Amino acid sequence: MTFTKYKSYKRLRSLAKKPIDLSKEGVLTPNRINRMVATSLNMKLFYGTERVDEEVMSNLAILAEESGAIAKMHDMQSGAKLNKIEGYESEDRMVLHTAMRDFFEDKNKAPAAKDASDLAYKEVEKLKAFCAELDKEGKIKHVVQVGIGGSDLGPRAIYLSLKSFETGNRKIHFLSNVDPDDAAAILLEVDLKHTLVVVVSKSGSTLETRTNEQFFVQKFKEKGIDPKKHMVAVTGKGSPMDNPELYRQSFYIWDYIGGRYSVTSMVGGVTIALAIGMENYMNFLRGASAMDKVALHSSPHMNLPLMGALLGIWNRNFLDLPTLAIIPYSNAMIRFPAHLQQCDMESNGKHILKDGSHVDFETGPIIWGEPGTNGQHSFYQLIHQGTTTVPVEFIGFRNSQYHVDVDVEGTCSQEKLLSNLFAQSIGLATGKHSDNPNKVFEGNRPNRVLFASQCDPYTVGSLLSYFENKVAFQGFIWGINSFDQEGVQLGKVLANQFIDLFRKKAKGEKLNRADFPLGQAFIDQIDGFKMEKPKFGKPLSA
Amino acid sequence: MTFTKYKSYKRLRSLAKKPIDLSKEGVLTPNRINRMVATSLNMKLFYGTERVDEEVMSNLAILAEESGAIAKMHDMQSGAKLNKIEGYESEDRMVLHTAMRDFFEDKNKAPAAKDASDLAYKEVEKLKAFCAELDKEGKIKHVVQVGIGGSDLGPRAIYLSLKSFETGNRKIHFLSNVDPDDAAAILLEVDLKHTLVVVVSKSGSTLETRTNEQFFVQKFKEKGIDPKKHMVAVTGKGSPMDNPELYRQSFYIWDYIGGRYSVTSMVGGVTIALAIGMENYMNFLRGASAMDKVALHSSPHMNLPLMGALLGIWNRNFLDLPTLAIIPYSNAMIRFPAHLQQCDMESNGKHILKDGSHVDFETGPIIWGEPGTNGQHSFYQLIHQGTTTVPVEFIGFRNSQYHVDVDVEGTCSQEKLLSNLFAQSIGLATGKHSDNPNKVFEGNRPNRVLFASQCDPYTVGSLLSYFENKVAFQGFIWGINSFDQEGVQLGKVLANQFIDLFRKKAKGEKLNRADFPLGQAFIDQIDGFKMEKPKFGKPLSA
Repeated sequence: MTFTKYKSYKRLRSLAKKPIDLSKEGVLTPNRINRMVATSLNMKLFYGTERVDEEVMSNLAILAEESGAIAKMHDMQSGAKLNKIEGYESEDRMVLHTAMRDFFEDKNKAPAAKDASDLAYKEVEKLKAFCAELDKEGKIKHVVQVGIGGSDLGPRAIYLSLKSFETGNRKIHFLSNVDPDDAAAILLEVDLKHTLVVVVSKSGSTLETRTNEQFFVQKFKEKGIDPKKHMVAVTGKGSPMDNPELYRQSFYIWDYIGGRYSVTSMVGGVTIALAIGMENYMNFLRGASAMDKVALHSSPHMNLPLMGALLGIWNRNFLDLPTLAIIPYSNAMIRFPAHLQQCDMESNGKHILKDGSHVDFETGPIIWGEPGTNGQHSFYQLIHQGTTTVPVEFIGFRNSQYHVDVDVEGTCSQEKLLSNLFAQSIGLATGKHSDNPNKVFEGNRPNRVLFASQCDPYTVGSLLSYFENKVAFQGFIWGINSFDQEGVQLGKVLANQFIDLFRKKAKGEKLNRADFPLGQAFIDQIDGFKMEKPKFGKPLSA
Repeated sequence: MTFTKYKSYKRLRSLAKKPIDLSKEGVLTPNRINRMVATSLNMKLFYGTERVDEEVMSNLAILAEESGAIAKMHDMQSGAKLNKIEGYESEDRMVLHTAMRDFFEDKNKAPAAKDASDLAYKEVEKLKAFCAELDKEGKIKHVVQVGIGGSDLGPRAIYLSLKSFETGNRKIHFLSNVDPDDAAAILLEVDLKHTLVVVVSKSGSTLETRTNEQFFVQKFKEKGIDPKKHMVAVTGKGSPMDNPELYRQSFYIWDYIGGRYSVTSMVGGVTIALAIGMENYMNFLRGASAMDKVALHSSPHMNLPLMGALLGIWNRNFLDLPTLAIIPYSNAMIRFPAHLQQCDMESNGKHILKDGSHVDFETGPIIWGEPGTNGQHSFYQLIHQGTTTVPVEFIGFRNSQYHVDVDVEGTCSQEKLLSNLFAQSIGLATGKHSDNPNKVFEGNRPNRVLFASQCDPYTVGSLLSYFENKVAFQGFIWGINSFDQEGVQLGKVLANQFIDLFRKKAKGEKLNRADFPLGQAFIDQIDGFKMEKPKFGKPLSA
C-alpha cells in the first residue's frame, strides 16, 4: 500500500478542501492555544496556529498508523536495512545514527544497534582522551574542521548554537568550499604552529575536502611544520584516508551513518567537544538520545518528531504548500536552518518510492529560513502578503544563553524577542481586515512554535534529534528512501569531466572536441572572457 | 492594462504549455550556449540552460515593451513618485536609491535626481573626512554596525563579499537581532575603549536597533567611557535619532531610500568604507551606477537586469515555479542570498496592483540559496530529483580574490570550483537517462549563470545594482508597488501589545484579560513553562 492509497489520505484530501479558517473571529482562541500543545521532554509544540482541527489531527494519527511509521522508526533504530530500493542496485545499508548517542537510558537491545553503539562509545572514549591530551599540552589554539555537506553544516550549526558554552581554550574554524578564497581567508586567521586540522570525509575521497587538506599540508610544509602532528582524520574504516601514518589521530565512522545524520558521530564530535568540552558534549548527546526514545512513542501528542512530521505532511500534501520556513528566534541558531535544509532536502527530495516506481504526490518541501527577529525586517512581507503561502516552524526559548540583557522601557530584550515570536505566530494565523487593500492581511498562514527553556547542550541535542526523526518519519509515511542521495551523482561526474578538460589544457594536451562539447563551449567562453574596461568619469567633487 | 491582459501574456501562456525540452538529445548544444549570452559591462549572462527559445525570448521582449518597463525605469531614476497605491493612503514617495551613486558617467539631469545625488555626495565627502580623521587618530580598532533588515543584510553581504579588500585597520561586527545573546556575543569580541558603534535606522525608532544602541550606551557608561565619543548615527533628517548632541557624527538618508535599497547610501557606506577604504568604496559605487545606466537600455540583450527580470517572470508566471535559488560559486558572497531574499521578497511579495485591486497572478518568488559548491553537498539532491522544480541563478567568477591556491592533480581549486559550477548548469538542464529509476535525472531544471572576472568592488557594485534593478523591473512588469512594505506592520503592532503585557507584569500591574487574550494565553504558557527534569542514566563507561 502506498501513500495516496491509504484511507486516511482520501479523507484528508477531502478535509483539505475546506480547512479551518483561522482568520474568522472566534476561531483562534486562548482555549485553542492551550488545547493544541504537544509536550516531549523539555519541549512544547504549540500548533493552534496550524490550519488543523480535531478531525484532521485524528486522521493524521490514522495516517501514521496506516503507514506503520512507528514500527519503521523501531526498525531503523534497531538496525534494519532501510537504506535501499527494492529490486535495484542501491546502497543497501542500515541507518544507525541514533546508535551514535545511545549511551544512556533505555538502550536499544537489538544486536546491530548494540554493536554500533558499543563501537561509537569507543570513539567517544578515544575523543575524551584526545581532548584531555590537547588540554594538557595547551599548544593548540586553533581548530580547523575541513569537511563539506554533512561534515560541515551540522557540526557548524551545533557549534554556533552552543558557542556560548565554549571553554575558550581554542578558536574554531570551518573550511568547506573548494573556492580557494575560503581557505585563504582562514589561513589569515590562524597561527599554523598552534593549529589542529580535523579532516572529515566518510568516503575519504571528497573532492573539496581532500583539496583543502592538501592546501593545509602544503602550508604546514612551507612553514617547516610536520603536517602529521597537526592533522586528525575522521573517516570510514578502509577509506583512502584511513592511514594513521598521515594523521596524529584517526576517528572512525561507518557506512550506516549518512553524512547529513552524522553530527552526533565523530564527524561533529571532535570539533564540538574541543570547543565546548566533554561534559557539555555528552549532554548534547543525552538530549539527542532522549528525543530518539520519544520518537518511539505511539501517540503523536507525546511524540514531538511524529507530530511535526504529520503537521508538515498536512501542509505539504493536503494544503499543497511547496516550502517550509524554519525560523529560530535565537541568533545562536543562525546556521540551524542551513543544516536542516540539507538534512530534509537531501533526505526527502526524492522522486521514487522504495520499490523504484515514480511517486504520484509531492515529496520533501524546500526548506529555508533565517533567525527572527531579523527575518521580520526581510522576507516576512512576502509571508504576510505574498501570493505563495509559506508554512513556518518557529523555534523559541524562554531564557537567553549569556544572561546579559538590557532593560529598555520596562522590558528586557529577551521579552521583546519572545513578544515578536508569538506576535508573528498569531498575526500570520489571524491576519487583519482593513478598508485599505494594502493593509489587508489575509491570515491563514499556518505556523507552529517549538519552545524550550534555553538553547543549551541538552536542548540543542533534543532539537537536532527532533528534526532528524521528523524527516525520517515523513520519509516512512511517504514510502521513500530518505537515506540515499543518488541525485548528487550527475554533478560529480560532469564536474570531473570539466576538471579533465582543465587538466589537459594546463598540460598543453590537445582536446578532443567530441569528448565533452558542452564543457568545451563553456571553457571557451571562460577563456574568451574579457573584462570590458569600464570607463570612469570623474566624480562630482572634481 | 494589467499584466494578464497583455497580448504577450497570452502568447507566452500558450508557449509555456510546451516549453523547450532541454533533456532531449541535441537540444542543448555548444551553439545554443554560445548564442544565448547577454553582455553588459564586465558581466555575461549565460541562459542557454533556461527553458526558452527564440519565440519565448521575443515575446518576453514584447512583454517588456507592453508594460513600459524601460520608461518606468527612466521615471524611477529621475525621481517620479512610484512608491504609491492609487486612490489609497500610501507612502507616496520617490524612489531614488540610484541617485546615491550617480556621481560618475551620464548623470541623470532630472532636477529631483540631481538634487538627491548632490545631497548624497555631500554625505560621501563627510564620510571621506571622517574616515581620514579615524585613520589619523588610529584609536578605533572595532566597528559595530547596529541595524536590522536593510541596515544589516545589505551592508553585511557587501562587507563579506569584499572582506579580502579590507585595509586591516579595524575589525567589523554587525549587531542586528534583539536577541540579547547577539549583543552579548559581540561584547565579548570588542574592546570598548577602541570601539565605534554605527547606529543605523532611517526612522530612528526601530525597536531592535534602539534597544541594542541602549545596550552599548549602558556598557560604555559602565566602563566610564563617554558614549557620544564612540557612537555615530545614520538616520533620516528629523528622526528621533537626528540629535547630534548624542553622536560623534551624524550621516543622513532620505525618505526616498527604501531600507532594502539603501546599501549604497550611508546605511552601508560608513561601515563599508571604514572596512575597505574610500577608494575601494568609490569603485563599488561606480560599478553600481554603471549597471543603473545599463538598466536604461531598451534591448534586453544589452540590459542584463531586464534580461534577468524577464527570465524570472518566465519561470514564475509561465512555468509556474514558486521559488528561485540564488547560488554564488564564491564563498565571499555567502550572505548575498540573504540580502537578495530581503530585496526581492520584501519588494515583490505583494498581493495588490498599484491601483489597489487584488492580483490575479503570482508575484515575487521565494528567494533562497547558499554558496556552491557547498549546496551541492546539501540541497542539490532535491533540485535534481525532487518533485518541485527549482530555477537557479548561478553567479561565478573567473578569478579568485586572494590569488592563493593549490594545485592538486593538475588543476587548481578555482578551476575545480568553476568545473562544478558549469557541470551543475549543464546537468540540471540535460538530466540523464538510466535503467535504474534511482539514477534517473529528469533534467529541464532551468538555470542561468551570471559570470564576471572577479568578485571585486566594481563587480560587486554591478551585481548589487543588477539585482536591485531586476527586482524593480519585475515589479514594473507586474504592475505592483515594489517599494513599500505594509506587510510588516501587523507583526509590529501585535509585538507591541505583547511587550505591553510583559511591562505591566514586571510592574505588578493587573492585566485586563479582555485586552489581548491571545497574548495572555501565550504568556501564561511561557510562565507555566517548566523544564521536565531529564532523567539521566549513567553512560556506558560506568
